[in-house]
Amino acid sequence: MEFKAKDIAALLQGVVEGDGEVLVNNVSKIEEGKPHTLAFLANPKYEQYIYTTEASVVLVNHDFLPSQIVPCTLIRVPSAYEAIAVLLRMYENMRPQPCGIEQPAYIADGVEMGEAPYIGAFAYIGKGVKIGNHVKIYPQAYIGDGVTIGDHTTIYAGVKIYHGCVIGSDCTIHAGTVIGADGFGFAPSGEGYNKVAQIGNVVLEDQVEIGANACIDRATMGSTRIKKGVKLDNLVQIAHNVVVGENTVMAAQCGVAGTTKVGAHCMFGGQVGIAGHLKIEDKTMLAAQTGVTNNVAEGSVFMGAPAFDASKYRKCYVLFRKLPELYGQLRDLEKEIQTLKSKQ
Amino acid sequence: MEFKAKDIAALLQGVVEGDGEVLVNNVSKIEEGKPHTLAFLANPKYEQYIYTTEASVVLVNHDFLPSQIVPCTLIRVPSAYEAIAVLLRMYENMRPQPCGIEQPAYIADGVEMGEAPYIGAFAYIGKGVKIGNHVKIYPQAYIGDGVTIGDHTTIYAGVKIYHGCVIGSDCTIHAGTVIGADGFGFAPSGEGYNKVAQIGNVVLEDQVEIGANACIDRATMGSTRIKKGVKLDNLVQIAHNVVVGENTVMAAQCGVAGTTKVGAHCMFGGQVGIAGHLKIEDKTMLAAQTGVTNNVAEGSVFMGAPAFDASKYRKCYVLFRKLPELYGQLRDLEKEIQTLKSKQ
Amino acid sequence: MEFKAKDIAALLQGVVEGDGEVLVNNVSKIEEGKPHTLAFLANPKYEQYIYTTEASVVLVNHDFLPSQIVPCTLIRVPSAYEAIAVLLRMYENMRPQPCGIEQPAYIADGVEMGEAPYIGAFAYIGKGVKIGNHVKIYPQAYIGDGVTIGDHTTIYAGVKIYHGCVIGSDCTIHAGTVIGADGFGFAPSGEGYNKVAQIGNVVLEDQVEIGANACIDRATMGSTRIKKGVKLDNLVQIAHNVVVGENTVMAAQCGVAGTTKVGAHCMFGGQVGIAGHLKIEDKTMLAAQTGVTNNVAEGSVFMGAPAFDASKYRKCYVLFRKLPELYGQLRDLEKEIQTLKSKQ
Repeated sequence: MEFKAKDIAALLQGVVEGDGEVLVNNVSKIEEGKPHTLAFLANPKYEQYIYTTEASVVLVNHDFLPSQIVPCTLIRVPSAYEAIAVLLRMYENMRPQPCGIEQPAYIADGVEMGEAPYIGAFAYIGKGVKIGNHVKIYPQAYIGDGVTIGDHTTIYAGVKIYHGCVIGSDCTIHAGTVIGADGFGFAPSGEGYNKVAQIGNVVLEDQVEIGANACIDRATMGSTRIKKGVKLDNLVQIAHNVVVGENTVMAAQCGVAGTTKVGAHCMFGGQVGIAGHLKIEDKTMLAAQTGVTNNVAEGSVFMGAPAFDASKYRKCYVLFRKLPELYGQLRDLEKEIQTLKSKQ
Repeated sequence: MEFKAKDIAALLQGVVEGDGEVLVNNVSKIEEGKPHTLAFLANPKYEQYIYTTEASVVLVNHDFLPSQIVPCTLIRVPSAYEAIAVLLRMYENMRPQPCGIEQPAYIADGVEMGEAPYIGAFAYIGKGVKIGNHVKIYPQAYIGDGVTIGDHTTIYAGVKIYHGCVIGSDCTIHAGTVIGADGFGFAPSGEGYNKVAQIGNVVLEDQVEIGANACIDRATMGSTRIKKGVKLDNLVQIAHNVVVGENTVMAAQCGVAGTTKVGAHCMFGGQVGIAGHLKIEDKTMLAAQTGVTNNVAEGSVFMGAPAFDASKYRKCYVLFRKLPELYGQLRDLEKEIQTLKSKQ
Repeated sequence: MEFKAKDIAALLQGVVEGDGEVLVNNVSKIEEGKPHTLAFLANPKYEQYIYTTEASVVLVNHDFLPSQIVPCTLIRVPSAYEAIAVLLRMYENMRPQPCGIEQPAYIADGVEMGEAPYIGAFAYIGKGVKIGNHVKIYPQAYIGDGVTIGDHTTIYAGVKIYHGCVIGSDCTIHAGTVIGADGFGFAPSGEGYNKVAQIGNVVLEDQVEIGANACIDRATMGSTRIKKGVKLDNLVQIAHNVVVGENTVMAAQCGVAGTTKVGAHCMFGGQVGIAGHLKIEDKTMLAAQTGVTNNVAEGSVFMGAPAFDASKYRKCYVLFRKLPELYGQLRDLEKEIQTLKSKQ
């Protein structure tokens, strides 16, 4: 499909500068722009590319002031970044969506199926599962007995959801993620360990998105709970009885140990690790690879392992890098003192 | 199902204090106790909750001495923690267990199937596989050619076991885990690499439990071996030719590089990394995120990366956090020495 | 199958020393050598074992000079390591290879299938997928709509490839890996986040090998690109719009954040983390657990988090471990200065 610049501008309530009749049929990044594509310029770091891009149309912020002649049509909008997000979503929505029940699928007795489902081939829907409206369950997904799935939720290929878990509405779970495997609970017993049965479940509230190959363990008792709007990236590990507060975001490969409560609106970089039985208050920000071993107060910005205040950490780390020099200075002082003493 | 407090007490050989006729139908955590549930108090940190809990019955240790009136029936037992573990296991065992062979499953020629199997739909059982008695293989699991699985082992949904691997008895492997993928072996060759074929296998001894989305690679030659009673959490990586000793426990996201031998009764926190070709002796304890680059002697308690003795590490880290102050003190000394020198 | 030592020597263009008629039927490691197996000695650290090994035949380098009597037949070759790699590959190739299309498999309309495919049971091949010649797709793999797969590529059990991704020739993707899940892109919106649609794809060039349960996210726009000859180990995370240069190797559990460009011929140890929007130049070497937060120049060898030059890091870390002593020396100097001052 092709669109005229002026039609895209109308859609975005933007203003055309240049040829409004030029046609685009795809989007591209400004630094890799190709003819008949639409790019965007939001980050000033990329301004240089707008003067040479081959993209036919570029979305820019209203206040963008070119310092040279631009070779393309501009569409000025209040926020180029938000405008491109709107266009990407429209583009994505134009992709044909799968629907219906492919064969063979395994649908056990007593499944409640909502309107307009997609159930992919080789998907497994256990006994007593309740599926809302407009739910998509991709091929080879496993939905254990008694699981509930809210409206407009998408479960990608090969996701495994153990029995009794509850998935909210408008959730997205990417391929390979496992929800509701047993928490890691063992009681020492002589030489070895006895398993502690994990009879709780996992609850995902609405608008949760989880990346690929992540793990959210079921609770020993009660629920491991991922609250509304939480976004977890690939390969994240959430242990039993953890609670993750609303709109908290964790980058890939983070791990949260058992029973820890993470507040709302937190942001964790990749590979962060948090010990068990802690309380991480709202709006905590953790740099990548941070290791948290104590409770964290609201609004903290931490790094390091064990973690402490990030700006303090950076100062300490600057001096860590200077340790050989500091050591040399210490040695010099020792010599000077020896000299002073010998002169007394 | 409902049980009277006095019947639970009888089962646990405990002593009722309060109303023995009160009915419970579920378990709960003491801090979230609800009417008609049974909770437990083992950790003194949680004692406060017993005076306000809505749980109808609470398991306590024989020597628990309440400091206020408790609103619930108590059952006194030698160990509240062990007693709750017994009850959780009973509760779990009451859940109906899947059995039989669901259709469609793929069962190749020459499979030896033990008594009372469960084979879920879309499970794949390769040629010459030998399955013990009372084995459960959940939907979408893949059991490669020639794999052997011992009695009473449970393989959850979507587990992938490559050809020729050996799984012991009483093992549990959670969803998405991959056993026996090729070890990461490449020989430099001009600009690139030639793959080194990995013709060994993986052996899991008895009573091994592995979490979800973990990876245990096959050996180049011989076996990667996970010994009796080992417990590995989610997303753990065990490379080719590694040996993990009996009853060793690793928390989530640990990684052990090729050919390293880990001893028995070790405990590793989350996100620990161990380099290749090392020997980690028995009873080693590693704090979360520790990075091990050398052999470790028996009974060591290590942290840091590169790792060393944990109590020494903590002392060093306290001073790391004080580096700005130490730097200031060093500067002050320099000035004082200048002053001293000028006065001579 | 059994082979005579002299026939193996002929195959490898090696020279027999000892009984050329001795038969071997398997390979073993020299430290675990068993009768009728062939072992190899390449690393001098293992020389001790050649004097006691029960292996019947041992491959050694041409210049190996035994210091004692060896109990086995030797085959001298230019490189024992390369020779064993050749034999392992031959051994591996003798294993019967799966072929044909197992039932039930799901093959959508308009799939282009090359010569001599293997499609395992419960594999899902979406609309318009193009599959080259001699491709193996193991059971329960998911190949989304419009995916292209080159000749001689092997996709193991349960791999999930999202729509529109491109997989080169001679690639190997191990079980459970997810290619093309959405990049982790969310735009803040009031209290929460709006998802940024990820309309790009993933391109794997030729001769790429990816371990088990890894994740390569699709690009927001354009492609996440893994170039020719790259080898990624298990549980590696590659975020959206990342480029990994030719013949770069990453050990298990590494993570690369969005839009970062990694050069060619780099080598990363396990659990390395790289922040987003960076440029890591060719031939960079990163120690395990390194955390990179800035661009890295060609040929750098880095460790630490935040990372810097590895040899400098090691010097700093030696002094970190000595901080309690340095602190003591600082205290001593303070006292000496006090003494000096009091004497003036």
